[in-house]
Amino acid sequence: MSSSLLNTLIDRLRVLPTVGPRSARRMALHLLQSDRAGGVKLSQALADAMTNINNCQQCQNFTEQTLCGVCSDQERDRSLLCVVENPADVDVIEMASDYQGYYFVLMGRLSPLDGIGPDDLGMEKLFELIRSVGVNEVILATSTSVEGDATAYYISDQLVNDDLKVTRLMTGMSAGSELEAISGSMLKQAFTLRQPFPASA
Amino acid sequence: MSSSLLNTLIDRLRVLPTVGPRSARRMALHLLQSDRAGGVKLSQALADAMTNINNCQQCQNFTEQTLCGVCSDQERDRSLLCVVENPADVDVIEMASDYQGYYFVLMGRLSPLDGIGPDDLGMEKLFELIRSVGVNEVILATSTSVEGDATAYYISDQLVNDDLKVTRLMTGMSAGSELEAISGSMLKQAFTLRQPFPASA
Ligand SMILES: [Zn+2]
Ligand SMILES: [Zn+2]
Repeated sequence: MSSSLLNTLIDRLRVLPTVGPRSARRMALHLLQSDRAGGVKLSQALADAMTNINNCQQCQNFTEQTLCGVCSDQERDRSLLCVVENPADVDVIEMASDYQGYYFVLMGRLSPLDGIGPDDLGMEKLFELIRSVGVNEVILATSTSVEGDATAYYISDQLVNDDLKVTRLMTGMSAGSELEAISGSMLKQAFTLRQPFPASA
Repeated sequence: MSSSLLNTLIDRLRVLPTVGPRSARRMALHLLQSDRAGGVKLSQALADAMTNINNCQQCQNFTEQTLCGVCSDQERDRSLLCVVENPADVDVIEMASDYQGYYFVLMGRLSPLDGIGPDDLGMEKLFELIRSVGVNEVILATSTSVEGDATAYYISDQLVNDDLKVTRLMTGMSAGSELEAISGSMLKQAFTLRQPFPASA
């Protein structure tokens, strides 16, 4: 390689998911040849985000404040808590539905094979929040994957002796789907038609 | 979006070729959740590369010096000049063949439809270099695409009155292929079997 800085850049680009050596090289050359200003802006945005974004102290979602925008909004309905896997899920629900409760973002889902257990998802924090705030209904909006279902079962199981309702979105989605794969109108309906979970409860 | 810094990062990631909004979001969340150190290193590598990499004054290839490593190597054969489209082509030739001459990197190919003419590729610089150094053979190693062929014809046409040999790699590649698609042993052979260009010359 003619330039060691170029070599390093190609190497570093591979921290991005799905970017292999060939596409990393294509990205680096494209920026150098056609968009250096864009490359500099990307560099700054990366540094800013990596340094200043932390997790909301209440819901774990990403924010640069102590509390995220949703958690610091006092107008929302404290009796409802919707549990999702990812920050992206909060965005799609906020855009598509008129849900007015709060969220808890697991930042993943139970996956024993990948070594992801309840502690990695902040489950203790979730149960503490539910009990301290006095939530009336916990809405499980984890994905319809095997792990998403297992995560929903784990949470409902831990809450079986609490005096509250546990529901799950009825998305009508095929197994394995992420929340973001669903259309806005279907997501809105899934909230309206949410059902007690597990079904036998 | 819960975090405006995250929003900005997702936006900025789209300067990368083939990265749309969904995959930009996936990249940003992956870095935040699983590899902040990698994200910071990528940010630094980007800033370094965008600021400090320039074009070699002789061959146009990327380098952080005035002359790239090949051009500053006095041991190489000044009578041979190989013209390629991209920095990546220099790398594959250096790795696969025992070519010992110099290079000129066009950083593209003639493409009137995209508004890329001889000036954009540094053609004047190329002809000046050929004449000032006293090159005996210009080896055209542009791609076998329509534009790569047109670029080869343009160069050979401009050199028709110069006292030197113009050859083209006989890659046996199907039309439209880039140099990097060829195997090492075939590339080595393509150098050995290079032919006068155009064939009628
Ligand atoms: Zn929050
Ligand atoms: Zn050079």
